Amino acid sequence: MPANENERPGERELVAQLLRLGLVDAGGPIPFGDDMAAAEPGAAPLLWSSDMLMDGVDFDSSVHDWRSIGRKAMAVSLSDCAAMAAAPLAALCAIALEQRLPMRAALDLQAGVAEAARAAGCRVVGGDTNSWPQPSVICVTVSARPEPGRALVTRRGARPGAALYLTGKLGGSILGRHMRPPLRIDVALAMNRELGPLAMIDISDGLAIDLSRMLEASGCGAELEAPLLEDVIHDDARTLARQTGRPPLAHALHDGEDFELLVALPAPLPKALAERFGLALIGRVVEGAEMALVARDGQRRPIEPRGWEHPVG
Amino acid sequence: MPANENERPGERELVAQLLRLGLVDAGGPIPFGDDMAAAEPGAAPLLWSSDMLMDGVDFDSSVHDWRSIGRKAMAVSLSDCAAMAAAPLAALCAIALEQRLPMRAALDLQAGVAEAARAAGCRVVGGDTNSWPQPSVICVTVSARPEPGRALVTRRGARPGAALYLTGKLGGSILGRHMRPPLRIDVALAMNRELGPLAMIDISDGLAIDLSRMLEASGCGAELEAPLLEDVIHDDARTLARQTGRPPLAHALHDGEDFELLVALPAPLPKALAERFGLALIGRVVEGAEMALVARDGQRRPIEPRGWEHPVG
Repeated sequence: MPANENERPGERELVAQLLRLGLVDAGGPIPFGDDMAAAEPGAAPLLWSSDMLMDGVDFDSSVHDWRSIGRKAMAVSLSDCAAMAAAPLAALCAIALEQRLPMRAALDLQAGVAEAARAAGCRVVGGDTNSWPQPSVICVTVSARPEPGRALVTRRGARPGAALYLTGKLGGSILGRHMRPPLRIDVALAMNRELGPLAMIDISDGLAIDLSRMLEASGCGAELEAPLLEDVIHDDARTLARQTGRPPLAHALHDGEDFELLVALPAPLPKALAERFGLALIGRVVEGAEMALVARDGQRRPIEPRGWEHPVG
Repeated sequence: MPANENERPGERELVAQLLRLGLVDAGGPIPFGDDMAAAEPGAAPLLWSSDMLMDGVDFDSSVHDWRSIGRKAMAVSLSDCAAMAAAPLAALCAIALEQRLPMRAALDLQAGVAEAARAAGCRVVGGDTNSWPQPSVICVTVSARPEPGRALVTRRGARPGAALYLTGKLGGSILGRHMRPPLRIDVALAMNRELGPLAMIDISDGLAIDLSRMLEASGCGAELEAPLLEDVIHDDARTLARQTGRPPLAHALHDGEDFELLVALPAPLPKALAERFGLALIGRVVEGAEMALVARDGQRRPIEPRGWEHPVG
């Protein structure tokens, strides 16, 4: 469902054109392009989403073991469930495996999928098994529902005054963390029970671009506080920054595949409550359409809504 | 969901191992490996299935236009709905497009998907858009429900005495028909209202292998009547037979991608009723586990449960 780190500018344009040409359905209860869609019409629909992972892009089978690859394929889909505050129910795993791979690789892949699914209370109920002479492709589709009596949390509920929180630190995932997306379903469900989140999205393509998607869907802008962002820079972002020569903050803003949640809450939380949920405040939603980074001295500069183009390794 | 024409012996074995190792869920209301699975627990679940199509295997983008490719990708999934006598509701379309393709190709592909979906009353509600330097891959996932008050039709309800019918002619689809799967949803729903089908499957990999799947799931054998089969040999099978030197009947039995329905009905239908549904009788379900071809003179020979390995062209 989400465009991912491989999105080129042309692909955002593609989605816009699909909507304009009426080739996809924009009339449902969820904005087209959100983390999950409605699998059936009507109120309280079952939610679903598909994520496709490709060898050499989202993983590298010459480096990563197949069990890790399977875990990641499932975890990426589970991250979509977390972003909608929905409890995962079932999954389909469709694969096109490079034809020279041994049976062991296929079983390890499926064991990884099953392991990640089980950890989230999700059952693998079907799939589609193919082989071909090209690099392997995995497409996991997951179904989920909000808890009984709880509202859907989409991208479009953010409003001026809302406080922006992250469930974890960002940047430098390419050093290895991108193969181990965190499981944020429990905290997402707990937030939906206790904190009334206005909007959520998972950081799959980078904080800047994913925040811009939430803001675009909600018709708002945002101000991120540079001193607060300092606290959510992952150690991996600092390590990577020493290799790339870019600032660690740039990695935290623009690297993809962290799979933490970005949450808009109605107001800032008491510090103890934020800590209980593992939430870090990074800024606020404002009127307008701009994303700005506000330095300690009050100076503002715009944040570009771009993700990081990273190779796999 | 279904293993497809690219299934190697190792992939049937893979599914068996997944079940044995407990890596997939075999406890649902539908046998694992049926045309669709249950997207949520409980009675009357939403059904879903994924089908992955790969360039150079299921289509050839150097020969087929992208609109036709999109139509086929959707139609293959709709065929799964027909096989379960379920009305399609919504679809997700995940793609990894070869990165040098122009935007036009992506739009044509999606237009084909939308066109086939619309013809079946199905809405395209989401997807996942990627590009990569390898041949294109498309994974369509569809959701569906039986009509209100109607039972699920799976593969496992066939029983001795049941009559075996086909919704159309078979063989030689590789000459071009494989790109235009027939839409058998209306007849499937009508059969489920009026004829009480015991078991159904769509012929994706070939009559012999798909019949063997129905029989295995049902714990039965079957006898197909050679003179009846003569009437379901497609003209394309005869044309292809002239090229391959194999008998036309071998093409009808073992070629894949016809996407007609194989239906087990409780008893043979009056001829006029069969004609009204466009159904052709081909044989019967029997005790045991064997598939036999019965010649006009009563001579029997076993039918091998193998599909045709065909190149794309």
